[in-house]
Amino acid sequence: MNLVKNQREILQFKNGRFTNVSDSIVTEFPVTVKINGEEFVTLVCTPEYIEDMVVGFLAAEGVIRQYKEIDNMWIQEKEGIVHIETTKINPYYQKFQGKRFITSCCGNSRQGFVFVNDAMTAKKMDDHYHVSVSVHDCFRFIEELENAAVIFQETGGAHTAALCDDDGIVLSRTDIGRHNALDKIYGYCLKNNISVADKIIVFSGRISSEILLKVAKIGCEVILSKSAPTELALQLAEDLGITTIGFIRNESLNVYTHPGRIVGGR
Amino acid sequence: MNLVKNQREILQFKNGRFTNVSDSIVTEFPVTVKINGEEFVTLVCTPEYIEDMVVGFLAAEGVIRQYKEIDNMWIQEKEGIVHIETTKINPYYQKFQGKRFITSCCGNSRQGFVFVNDAMTAKKMDDHYHVSVSVHDCFRFIEELENAAVIFQETGGAHTAALCDDDGIVLSRTDIGRHNALDKIYGYCLKNNISVADKIIVFSGRISSEILLKVAKIGCEVILSKSAPTELALQLAEDLGITTIGFIRNESLNVYTHPGRIVGGR
Repeated sequence: MNLVKNQREILQFKNGRFTNVSDSIVTEFPVTVKINGEEFVTLVCTPEYIEDMVVGFLAAEGVIRQYKEIDNMWIQEKEGIVHIETTKINPYYQKFQGKRFITSCCGNSRQGFVFVNDAMTAKKMDDHYHVSVSVHDCFRFIEELENAAVIFQETGGAHTAALCDDDGIVLSRTDIGRHNALDKIYGYCLKNNISVADKIIVFSGRISSEILLKVAKIGCEVILSKSAPTELALQLAEDLGITTIGFIRNESLNVYTHPGRIVGGR
Repeated sequence: MNLVKNQREILQFKNGRFTNVSDSIVTEFPVTVKINGEEFVTLVCTPEYIEDMVVGFLAAEGVIRQYKEIDNMWIQEKEGIVHIETTKINPYYQKFQGKRFITSCCGNSRQGFVFVNDAMTAKKMDDHYHVSVSVHDCFRFIEELENAAVIFQETGGAHTAALCDDDGIVLSRTDIGRHNALDKIYGYCLKNNISVADKIIVFSGRISSEILLKVAKIGCEVILSKSAPTELALQLAEDLGITTIGFIRNESLNVYTHPGRIVGGR
């Protein structure tokens, strides 16, 4: 069970008739996080880089603020349980867990935040740009992402996120959960002190508000995707200073927010 | 804000140059459910059929067991708040909310349930088949689904679920959240006493365990999709007696579980 994919005998209809064939099916594995012995959350994921995913998740949710706040961490692999010991759990986290962010002036926050903890955790980019991309980079990085997305190609059921610098993909992670792929990247960066200010995120799926917020939490200024963004994601991107580029396909692309980081060919 | 999509000025690169164009962007709208005055959950969704979605969500999660258990329900549309009054909240729900289902024998349940509430809410189909589909039906229903998925075609950022009988689509719902589309169908069926035993679900996205469980909770015996299933979804489908058919595209398809409901052309 604890594998990225399984082989399974299926009945396939093709060229007008049914045959029995063997097919690769992507694994979906539940990982339960226990903090100081207490069940905290269950994430359903692709079972690789589990420790990175949990570190990234806890930081993105604002449960911890730095990797060193985890005193001890161990995994029961077969059972899918990750044990975390910490004395530094963010006191604001539990108070606002899952709570709606409602400003005093109106129902929706101007910045588009839905949850209180996101408003506390997402980083706003400063006005000085640390990174730029060309149209050529966009096409090149999306092509590299597709080449890296081996699980997706074989099983058709996963999303891939990658961290890129000028030379291309530095790190890529694939997961059946869109946000898990980004949590795995975030956790790896936190554990290994990887600087992200000069890097961008390339993502295979739609840019929802949740995905945009993960990018802001990781601290990257640019997200590229083959897919479409949502309006809420774009409102957040505008306010947080993030460049969003989507629908990168067939030699065309859309720049939705902060086009100032696009260089050349404009 | 409270619309299914927005128009937005964007910078588009096409045919080798940048131009400013107007683009349709899908809306992502937060809906907060308050039960007896207390904040219960926030769902981020496409803002249509909100009441159906909340009814479907509460039933699927096992918070209520029947529509009539809701004494009163009203919506603050602008703020995105749905108020529910009930005296019949399921006592087991809060006890097990988000809790991992772990059997006494091993880490994973044989049936593949991840959460306790799912194990209590998902219906197991009986051995007598109430519905059958032909290969031709599969291709026809997927084609109808694509024609119904207007928001997706224009914005590239949503999923569509449909309830079909022999004559085709009875009801279809599109949402940026995969599971919301199914909750909207479930809520509509509960409110209007629609019988589902003779109907099947057609879905535009991947068949994850969460989607498979929604189908079981609605009470349908068959799910069709253009996309791939996960291994956990197929384990659940096997045990719950559901026929899963995926990768329906280019005149081919894969039958993963319970092929006995396929008629003709085998």
